[in-house]
Amino acid sequence: MPEPIDFYFDFSSPYGYVAAHLIEPLAQRHIRAVRWRPTLLGPAFQVSGNRPLGDQPLKGDYMRHDVPRLCRRYGIPFAWPEPFPIGTVAPARAVYWLWDKDPDEAVRYAKAVYRAYFAEGRNIGDAAVALQVAADEGLDAEALGQALQDPDLKARTKAAVEHAIKLGVFGSPFFLVDEEPFWGVDRLPLMDEWMARGGW
Amino acid sequence: MPEPIDFYFDFSSPYGYVAAHLIEPLAQRHIRAVRWRPTLLGPAFQVSGNRPLGDQPLKGDYMRHDVPRLCRRYGIPFAWPEPFPIGTVAPARAVYWLWDKDPDEAVRYAKAVYRAYFAEGRNIGDAAVALQVAADEGLDAEALGQALQDPDLKARTKAAVEHAIKLGVFGSPFFLVDEEPFWGVDRLPLMDEWMARGGW
Repeated sequence: MPEPIDFYFDFSSPYGYVAAHLIEPLAQRHIRAVRWRPTLLGPAFQVSGNRPLGDQPLKGDYMRHDVPRLCRRYGIPFAWPEPFPIGTVAPARAVYWLWDKDPDEAVRYAKAVYRAYFAEGRNIGDAAVALQVAADEGLDAEALGQALQDPDLKARTKAAVEHAIKLGVFGSPFFLVDEEPFWGVDRLPLMDEWMARGGW
Repeated sequence: MPEPIDFYFDFSSPYGYVAAHLIEPLAQRHIRAVRWRPTLLGPAFQVSGNRPLGDQPLKGDYMRHDVPRLCRRYGIPFAWPEPFPIGTVAPARAVYWLWDKDPDEAVRYAKAVYRAYFAEGRNIGDAAVALQVAADEGLDAEALGQALQDPDLKARTKAAVEHAIKLGVFGSPFFLVDEEPFWGVDRLPLMDEWMARGGW
């Protein structure tokens, strides 16, 4: 069986949100699993010198037009959350903790977090909200709440973010397939081809 | 007949180079003409706060890997030019001058300029090289050389660049179809769909 696809995303990234709806059917066509790897764009931007899209003149306006258009195209519910963007370390840590217990639960939780933020406008950067999303999904929010205080989980998440940066992950979504990098939801069709042909 | 597609590009943009190979077949499918509109990313970056991709840690490395990969995919000849990036005001002015005489000549020249830079490594930012490319194409390089000194042509090109920025053109390639903006060569499939469906 081929290697899984590594899917890097920040929960504050609307393009990551779109990708979260598209990656699984694509991976399934190639009989590949998906490893959901939340990361944090803040530390990546410190390395790359980039800054949040919404803060950039011209580019920010384009994004504000483009994201709802893209969501309409794919039939994905979307409403601009407020505040935006936000720090997303709490749900990122939660995903890593859940992943070790049960990857399926982690994926279900990650999708629910994205939906809570970009469809329901809930501030998932707030740890209490991140826990509430877990509770809404029937996950063990009490154990998760304790885990979020665990220095080991904090260190693990930090190491995951640093590792992503080391691999060159500078944006969201970002994919690695057999070490081949693909940045952006727009690149999924080419990544699809790359897997079908085994490169070119 | 539907409105033309406006195709904005900087001659120093490798993704613009790729788009120059893809835009015409796409436009033809929709019975649309293409208006080739060279622009300059330098002034746009002054507004957006962006900077050349190659200078950005992580993102620059991705681009250096991605552009040759994309060119292999589409069978487009490519070799990294040196120096890169460059200022491209000379060939941009030449395209605007040629366009007024004969748009077909302008398009032929624009393609030749891109090929000279990204396939043959010629420094087309140098006005003498930009003129030589015109001569190689059998165009009137002497008249063009005189035109490049004309303050009116300089003013016209400057106004075109400023107008592009006003329209929100912050990168290359950038397309406007019936006032709908699409940024990046990756977006051509969605632009294709947009035209086919008349939006969504």
